[in-house]
Amino acid sequence: MCRLAALADTVAMDSPRRTFNVLALCGSLRAASINAALLRAAARIAAPEADIEVADWLGRLPLFNPDLENVVDDRELPRAVNALRLAVDAADAILIASPEYAHGISGTIKNALDWLVSFEPFIHKPVAVINASPRAHHADEALRETLRTMSAGLVGEASFAVELLGAHMDEDAMAESPAVAEVVRQAIAALRTELGRQAGDEIPVFPLR
Amino acid sequence: MCRLAALADTVAMDSPRRTFNVLALCGSLRAASINAALLRAAARIAAPEADIEVADWLGRLPLFNPDLENVVDDRELPRAVNALRLAVDAADAILIASPEYAHGISGTIKNALDWLVSFEPFIHKPVAVINASPRAHHADEALRETLRTMSAGLVGEASFAVELLGAHMDEDAMAESPAVAEVVRQAIAALRTELGRQAGDEIPVFPLR
Repeated sequence: MCRLAALADTVAMDSPRRTFNVLALCGSLRAASINAALLRAAARIAAPEADIEVADWLGRLPLFNPDLENVVDDRELPRAVNALRLAVDAADAILIASPEYAHGISGTIKNALDWLVSFEPFIHKPVAVINASPRAHHADEALRETLRTMSAGLVGEASFAVELLGAHMDEDAMAESPAVAEVVRQAIAALRTELGRQAGDEIPVFPLR
Repeated sequence: MCRLAALADTVAMDSPRRTFNVLALCGSLRAASINAALLRAAARIAAPEADIEVADWLGRLPLFNPDLENVVDDRELPRAVNALRLAVDAADAILIASPEYAHGISGTIKNALDWLVSFEPFIHKPVAVINASPRAHHADEALRETLRTMSAGLVGEASFAVELLGAHMDEDAMAESPAVAEVVRQAIAALRTELGRQAGDEIPVFPLR
């Protein structure tokens, strides 16, 4: 079965809804990261409709070097780079939550994206962006600009801001928060709609914003 | 002798000009990087007035993790992080050349800066930014915004754009290029002026742009 047909089957509105796979990328490596806690809480909220796998190993990626991409066999790539690409390819959609450092995107998430710029399966992949600190807009805007430039399928309706910085909520509190649950469910629904649209269309159309 | 007095001695306009030290940070790890070649060429052009040391080891930095900064003794920091901070502290000024990847700052240079956000000696340190691809403006603007946010001493008159992308010039050609020599000399002169201003003022004033 071709990939699009499989997707259509996954997301068909008149069949029992199947779980779809979301790879969650966190731009912070701090153990007590709000963004990591939010992604883990989102995984609890979204189950079983979506299976969100939080990639907590982006710190193992080497810093991007185009020379290391020129390999004949993907297995010659740095191991963590190959793992990232395999995980992206296997995911139906991507969810990103990342902090802002000094009015800029975190080096960690940009480095992960730099390794995906030339990776064809990332193109048109539905992507949702969460901003856990809405007053910080530089990193969010930079992230969206880069995702659009990479031709990722940035889904506006699946991307949201939720004020968590300073809220002193841990993963449990976030998972039990009606406000967090509402935006996560909205994001998952919008990603599913986008997957359905991609499965039905030859040329995907994304509601960019 | 205090640091400012030493600086004043270094840059005094009526004394024989002494060499000052510039740490050059390159945002690309590619062996054939235009930015790295430009920084090496700049080092040749600027000598002996300025001693430009090209830090070609930013790829050895781990990805930024705030948890790893919480150390009692700097020697407990990751080795490359400590080396970066020592080099920044020892330098009179910083020169940055970095590529744009997917309309964004390179993960490599942002990661290096993320490790310097809380490093006090970076504050007010004169910094010049070179953009070797003037048509790419996103990364240059993001870099300047972050440097201003870090309270680095971004020196507008020392920062310049020079079209080298697609010029097919190697380090030798750049070092022999009158156009490159002119902007490098202008940058070095502006950095020296800024050092003199800092040595003479209690509160440095930077020509931001």
